[in-house]
Amino acid sequence: MDERTTISDLKLRVQKFCEDRDWDQFHNAKDLAIGIITESSELLEHFRFKSKEEMEGYFVDGHKREEISEELADVLFFVLRFAQMFNIDITQELIKKIEKNNQRYPVEKCKGANKKYSEL
Amino acid sequence: MDERTTISDLKLRVQKFCEDRDWDQFHNAKDLAIGIITESSELLEHFRFKSKEEMEGYFVDGHKREEISEELADVLFFVLRFAQMFNIDITQELIKKIEKNNQRYPVEKCKGANKKYSEL
Amino acid sequence: MDERTTISDLKLRVQKFCEDRDWDQFHNAKDLAIGIITESSELLEHFRFKSKEEMEGYFVDGHKREEISEELADVLFFVLRFAQMFNIDITQELIKKIEKNNQRYPVEKCKGANKKYSEL
Amino acid sequence: MDERTTISDLKLRVQKFCEDRDWDQFHNAKDLAIGIITESSELLEHFRFKSKEEMEGYFVDGHKREEISEELADVLFFVLRFAQMFNIDITQELIKKIEKNNQRYPVEKCKGANKKYSEL
Repeated sequence: MDERTTISDLKLRVQKFCEDRDWDQFHNAKDLAIGIITESSELLEHFRFKSKEEMEGYFVDGHKREEISEELADVLFFVLRFAQMFNIDITQELIKKIEKNNQRYPVEKCKGANKKYSEL
Repeated sequence: MDERTTISDLKLRVQKFCEDRDWDQFHNAKDLAIGIITESSELLEHFRFKSKEEMEGYFVDGHKREEISEELADVLFFVLRFAQMFNIDITQELIKKIEKNNQRYPVEKCKGANKKYSEL
Repeated sequence: MDERTTISDLKLRVQKFCEDRDWDQFHNAKDLAIGIITESSELLEHFRFKSKEEMEGYFVDGHKREEISEELADVLFFVLRFAQMFNIDITQELIKKIEKNNQRYPVEKCKGANKKYSEL
Repeated sequence: MDERTTISDLKLRVQKFCEDRDWDQFHNAKDLAIGIITESSELLEHFRFKSKEEMEGYFVDGHKREEISEELADVLFFVLRFAQMFNIDITQELIKKIEKNNQRYPVEKCKGANKKYSEL
């Protein structure tokens, strides 16, 4: 469904879910950023102490794959909610950031390298 | 631009940026989840020790607003990259999760309440 | 017991627990840092969307207090394990860092201020 | 210095640093937990996208080792501050937790295994 769904479509769904429950009062910037990081941590926890081989198995095992996809959706939920609450056009921000990183990480210098721009 | 951009559009931009640099080799599940959480932390750090009043000022101050929006875009970058690398339709997952949460958090029980479903 | 227990005492307990289970093989720097952050997130999750008043109640409610203290111990477990695995004298590092912060955050400038040293 | 320094010694140093700056007012449970997780993230970031071999090099390179040790100290700073602010005897909590984990992770079942207790 990713091909036919806009960012605004998803933002609206998230907004409706939260407004139906009258949650604007709890959704200040700090607590939404906490929402993002705590859900990110639940995603990361699946890979703690796991080897490359074990992780590859995760994406063939339907149940594990399901759990991981759900954690990823939880992160996205709060990212969209944050953008919606503070009127951030996240598409515009992402494109701007990719352009900035195009400068910071020029292809000829970064191809196949895992260094940070500050170490290049 | 959120109104006219699909999730797939953004996934493609992120994919192109990474493939141009030959970064698939570094982008396993564990390291991408680390990417998501470390960027989430940079977002959260803006609000550390800050009061409600100070945070509200952030969204009127153009420069601070810019910085925060950029951090949010960094989180989204890795969320989309994770979805793209592991063939996750993130729209479908988000909708599924919202439906699940509609069960877990029935409106009549949750309206105006900040409890977790396990505490309801 | 904090008054009569040294850092080394605690490091040894953590080391014994892990070595009894033959876990050195999983405890590389990246996975231990993941251990620290995922446990930190479990601590933080207790405060997500909670007001100052609700949080103050947590420390009078014996059960909540117990849960929070346990999460804090989980973070410390991995901090000590990291220090032990990589031969870091964490006391020395902490004292060095406090001295550095004494320079970065001079009392006369920082008293009652919640700014980062880079914003002073 | 870990051999001759008690947990209380370190707690007192952290407390003095913060009280000299009148920071009790900012150090509520939520913001201290944010302190712990944001510092954990700075530690973790050193290992993002890095291979086992690169990470091993970090602990022979004096400068990288220094940076990593400093991040670890930053995490410990906030762990101790949290314990001190909320009167948590962290030694007692850690020992209790290790005992609990001795039950959850019996040696005969866990030796050489990287499973969570809930998966055993």
